[in-house]
Amino acid sequence: MPRYRYEYLEQELKQQIRSGYLQTGDRLPSIRSLCRDYQVSKATVLHALHRLESEQLVQARPKSGYFVRTPEYESPLPTRVQTPKTPAPVSVSAIFRDIMSQGAAFDILPAASQQDSLPQLTQLNRLMGRQMRLHPEQKAGYYDESAGKYSLRTALSAHLRQRKLRVDPENICITSGCQHSLFIALMITCQPGDTVAVESPAFYGVLQIMEQLGLNIIEISGDPVSGIDIQELQEQLTHWPIKACVVTPNFGTPAGSCIPPEHYASLVDLACRNDFWLIEDDIYGDLAFSSAATAPLKSQDNPQNEKVILCGSVSKSLSRDLRVGWIIAGGLHNKALQMKLITQLASPQAIQEGLAQFIAEGHYRRHLSQLRQKLQQQRDQLLAYLSQNWGQKIRYSQPDGGLCIWVQLPDACDSQAAYRSLREEGILLTPGTLFSAHGLYRHYLRLSFAQPLSAKRKAALDRLFICVLELSDKTSCQ
Amino acid sequence: MPRYRYEYLEQELKQQIRSGYLQTGDRLPSIRSLCRDYQVSKATVLHALHRLESEQLVQARPKSGYFVRTPEYESPLPTRVQTPKTPAPVSVSAIFRDIMSQGAAFDILPAASQQDSLPQLTQLNRLMGRQMRLHPEQKAGYYDESAGKYSLRTALSAHLRQRKLRVDPENICITSGCQHSLFIALMITCQPGDTVAVESPAFYGVLQIMEQLGLNIIEISGDPVSGIDIQELQEQLTHWPIKACVVTPNFGTPAGSCIPPEHYASLVDLACRNDFWLIEDDIYGDLAFSSAATAPLKSQDNPQNEKVILCGSVSKSLSRDLRVGWIIAGGLHNKALQMKLITQLASPQAIQEGLAQFIAEGHYRRHLSQLRQKLQQQRDQLLAYLSQNWGQKIRYSQPDGGLCIWVQLPDACDSQAAYRSLREEGILLTPGTLFSAHGLYRHYLRLSFAQPLSAKRKAALDRLFICVLELSDKTSCQ
Repeated sequence: MPRYRYEYLEQELKQQIRSGYLQTGDRLPSIRSLCRDYQVSKATVLHALHRLESEQLVQARPKSGYFVRTPEYESPLPTRVQTPKTPAPVSVSAIFRDIMSQGAAFDILPAASQQDSLPQLTQLNRLMGRQMRLHPEQKAGYYDESAGKYSLRTALSAHLRQRKLRVDPENICITSGCQHSLFIALMITCQPGDTVAVESPAFYGVLQIMEQLGLNIIEISGDPVSGIDIQELQEQLTHWPIKACVVTPNFGTPAGSCIPPEHYASLVDLACRNDFWLIEDDIYGDLAFSSAATAPLKSQDNPQNEKVILCGSVSKSLSRDLRVGWIIAGGLHNKALQMKLITQLASPQAIQEGLAQFIAEGHYRRHLSQLRQKLQQQRDQLLAYLSQNWGQKIRYSQPDGGLCIWVQLPDACDSQAAYRSLREEGILLTPGTLFSAHGLYRHYLRLSFAQPLSAKRKAALDRLFICVLELSDKTSCQ
Repeated sequence: MPRYRYEYLEQELKQQIRSGYLQTGDRLPSIRSLCRDYQVSKATVLHALHRLESEQLVQARPKSGYFVRTPEYESPLPTRVQTPKTPAPVSVSAIFRDIMSQGAAFDILPAASQQDSLPQLTQLNRLMGRQMRLHPEQKAGYYDESAGKYSLRTALSAHLRQRKLRVDPENICITSGCQHSLFIALMITCQPGDTVAVESPAFYGVLQIMEQLGLNIIEISGDPVSGIDIQELQEQLTHWPIKACVVTPNFGTPAGSCIPPEHYASLVDLACRNDFWLIEDDIYGDLAFSSAATAPLKSQDNPQNEKVILCGSVSKSLSRDLRVGWIIAGGLHNKALQMKLITQLASPQAIQEGLAQFIAEGHYRRHLSQLRQKLQQQRDQLLAYLSQNWGQKIRYSQPDGGLCIWVQLPDACDSQAAYRSLREEGILLTPGTLFSAHGLYRHYLRLSFAQPLSAKRKAALDRLFICVLELSDKTSCQ
């Protein structure tokens, strides 16, 4: 029997968590309602909550309350894979194209799509609609500024300042999305036949660009927590003339890894000394769960000898449909601008102006705060579900941001083989081979927590794991 | 003294035209109001109008009425220029970039911009706004179909059928504009170092793409009326391995020339026999003044051995701001699709869906009919103004569609030299050198009739000609 009131409350809440009444990611009742329901003081409630927190059962989130934490039975992290040590051209298979055109939605069950309403999107549409109605003839007859609307570049400049990146609007060039920015970055830094180092597992969009541009790839193995292996990159630089290196310092797909900011300086230093470009894919940069924003690599670029080209977009953090991205190319700004003009010429003005207002008036900040909370909750649900149901067979990453986790299966599994049969059932598996130019990661796959883990998605997940683990029923993932 | 009533009416109208009360491009009063005002029968009015028509003073336009024609004192056409006969790399100067980024609006006096209201644009905005409000979360979370919204491709397929081009929606790929389509077309047909033939004077956007992609150019001289010289192209094919040829069969910028449809078959035949690609810039295809629509070259492509890649857009015919274009690449469709995906990934869905509805519901057809009438009137005004004020010094083309005319100055003139000083006065001259990779056409310039010829624009035109003709005050243009 509990001796004190806080002990009683603590045990009550523990029981609710263990019984599943409160699930991973759920928010606990507010302090005020706990006071009322249990007829105790605020100090007593806080005492109980702090004890649950120190037992790692719940987690406080600033301004949001207390949430049920992912339980301690977490899986070990995925292991790294040896990457080939010589540059090779990139050749992307037909299945790869099919998967890419389907898989970019980050949803294993597209048919079940029933998005939560995001109130800020309505506001964004309202702002864009208003801009569309203003001077429509003027907009129809004239292109926007070559580098994109100044109002949008100003809003982005202020937004990036919150992430410790100081960049003038004059040095930002608007593009039609992060993919467009990455394309421009590789076009202006490389010639066909050049060698590019890419963090591995890599974003498939970059591999496709490299194939089309006739670039050779060196995959540099990445850690599921700390991203690209800087030692390995340094080693490879002594062997090959590397022109550029593509990295995703914040929550890179598929693993959700982050390059520790204390490594930024040495990476930039390496680029300066060896004269190669660091192409930073920052598309997930706004999706850090912790309230402390994560600075982009570009924030620690060498001001005397800029080497980092930042590519960003709102596609993952606000809307895939706006087709608004940006490139911050430092000394190569004019080259980037030129390449933007010959590929895209301009961007719709109403979308840029509406988005500029949306950012400047604080709607984007509010949207991000809600979205991060939702994603964190969905990540917790996914991790808890995997741990409870498949934890004995698989390993997976546990990122603190972004949209996805990287799952390692037993060695004998082949996730690509399962792709086609699952596809017929309407289940979209994203096989690990998609993230390598060398067919690595056959026994890996990417799972996303961009969608809520509904009962239908749970069933799809089970079907997926039954299918991919079939071949290796008796083995387990080491 | 006129003996008959129709003679009296005829002389009245003639007097109004000669005195300037009715100006070139103006619409005559309706038949009904002429009957009423002059107290005559409809037969009498028609008799008078037919006589004015046979005197080439007025022109009937189907369903629109009678308009004052451009007077007979038209200028001779610009002469052709000898183009260099060996392939050369393209190198675009800094001034070229500046002009390009400013000049794409087709307006010599951007500050005077006061667009007529185009009622259909309001309808388009309404349709796009409605699509934006439908399922915003769904749109924010998912990309469109890889080739673009099927509804838009269906609407375009039906629209192009009116121009005698039969193409299934499955063979159309949506892009972010004609510039993007041309970029894709050159990327999928050529490798760096390849030689591309381009109709000369050429669209500067194509020259810029070729510079960036490291392609060599052969300029094939074009006639201001009938476009590319097919004989010259044939001759060049015997000397150089030409991979592609860029043509604008309908109202190409800057001259507004049209390849006669009876030459289409021999051009396609040439491409089949010599195995090169015909890249058709069809951006002005919807801007033919005559009611008979002009068929694209693609409509006469060889079905067994497709050689024509059609690039189109609504930027010039509806709105530059939508950033919607398309590419119809025949056997290279999948390659084009792949290139679209790696550069742009997707297009905003609400814009595509709104535009699809706009076309399908007949608004686009109505808009085009109004726009063509307006452009024809503005062309007539510009031609009349030039003829009356500068006709002794210059030559110019008289296209039956598109947005601009090609003006030839006396040999000693240098339009590029005048560019900078006029720029300071807010006047935007588009120098002829912009349309050549070899610095040809120094004594040419492009004038647009996309804007109404207001008093301010007339003053700007006078200032422009005073400036460019200054150096050669005593010479005239032969």
